Amino acid sequence: MSVKLGGNILVTGTNRGIGLELVKHLVENAGEQDHIYACCREPEGAGATALRELANQHPLQITVVQLDTSDEASISAAVQTVGERVGAGGLNLLINNAAINRPASPATLSRTSKTDMMQVYETNVVGPFLLAKMFLPHLQRAAECGSPPKDKGDRMSCRRSAIINISTLISSIEKCPETFYAARMYPYRTSKAALNMLTRCLAEDFRKHNILVTAVHPGWVLTDMGGKEAPLTPRDSVVGMLGMMSSLGDKDSGILLDWEGNRIPW
Amino acid sequence: MSVKLGGNILVTGTNRGIGLELVKHLVENAGEQDHIYACCREPEGAGATALRELANQHPLQITVVQLDTSDEASISAAVQTVGERVGAGGLNLLINNAAINRPASPATLSRTSKTDMMQVYETNVVGPFLLAKMFLPHLQRAAECGSPPKDKGDRMSCRRSAIINISTLISSIEKCPETFYAARMYPYRTSKAALNMLTRCLAEDFRKHNILVTAVHPGWVLTDMGGKEAPLTPRDSVVGMLGMMSSLGDKDSGILLDWEGNRIPW
Repeated sequence: MSVKLGGNILVTGTNRGIGLELVKHLVENAGEQDHIYACCREPEGAGATALRELANQHPLQITVVQLDTSDEASISAAVQTVGERVGAGGLNLLINNAAINRPASPATLSRTSKTDMMQVYETNVVGPFLLAKMFLPHLQRAAECGSPPKDKGDRMSCRRSAIINISTLISSIEKCPETFYAARMYPYRTSKAALNMLTRCLAEDFRKHNILVTAVHPGWVLTDMGGKEAPLTPRDSVVGMLGMMSSLGDKDSGILLDWEGNRIPW
Repeated sequence: MSVKLGGNILVTGTNRGIGLELVKHLVENAGEQDHIYACCREPEGAGATALRELANQHPLQITVVQLDTSDEASISAAVQTVGERVGAGGLNLLINNAAINRPASPATLSRTSKTDMMQVYETNVVGPFLLAKMFLPHLQRAAECGSPPKDKGDRMSCRRSAIINISTLISSIEKCPETFYAARMYPYRTSKAALNMLTRCLAEDFRKHNILVTAVHPGWVLTDMGGKEAPLTPRDSVVGMLGMMSSLGDKDSGILLDWEGNRIPW
């Protein structure tokens, strides 16, 4: 499957799991004008070996950037670095993928602390909030430079200027009764419902700039976070997501879709 | 209108606005066996004069309790105090009303800080989360002691054992496009969407204990928080909410209703 995304793309949480797989597929399909800013908390750490190797194989296409979404100074430094690199072309696509889930399973009410609630919200919601706010000038620049996709007459697309927030099926308040007993996860669920609201608010706020904002459920994926029973490989999830993302248009801003493009209720 | 709520009731944020009005109406209709625990951050402060006067007029029905929902030690102390007072009868109704909204208007993206996001979440979501978790033994006791309402065959009711989370119309992700430009309020909106998820999770978790958990939109009310243009008086909102709450049953646990009992989508 040909992935039709390009330009300047930034992905958070890329040292493993879905984030790493996103970088792999984006670089496979990258042209000379495309560049991927692959962010993670500890680029020099033992947990980022695979990312560093990938970046070394594609030095013209990948820049690894230190970014801890729970640290405002780190976000500010990353925006500065990336902003200088992308210049007048701006940032075409920001994928907020970094997320944490605490406490460790079983995440029951009695085992969940105030610190769990606050830290998960900080990383999963406030991080994407600050990235959207601070990258806005660069996203606007991309929206102004890029021509709208011609095939559908839409003003917005992931190739022009967009934010994709990686959400989850269990962010759905509507579907909570179906999923609650398999995964209670109070901090994660409340954070992802809040991320959905953030997605919808940003979609409204940025519509005037022609910046698309959509939330995506990657499926239940075989990663450190998804666990060993997950039915979907990172590859299948990412191929599905990137294909779906490349087809998003005006009507898709401010909604929640799964990796196959099916709509999930709030 | 006769309010049919009774037993041991705790309300947070009662020094003004909707919280103070809730205590006024609850005490008007309280019998000898009923007791209201009226919580606020600074019971001795200048902002709690009206609450202290009300409590002085009804010393047998109202106990004022210091409670700052952003301070875990304060919550813990309040649970200890109230737990000892209610004893074997338990707590029949917990109304999570305390909330903050920052930054001051206009709450645009560019004027909103990380601190705003974190503090609003701490008070509006983590506070109710901790109160539900820590009051659970007392709510369970009330559910075990109280007999279910006979009129509808329901197991759950606000007279037996319940948590009411005061939410808002603008918590609705579905309705965001209709309301966004009148009230952007990123921290408040994301916190209240998360509170709705918390409501639905607690409703699932506590169903086995026969504890009802419902989110309620009080309307746009003429208070310090609602502003001077609001169309609804605190009295009308509270009379509506208490009447509606007294009729809640099994089917209403885990949903969002307005003060007149109309369902609001997530």
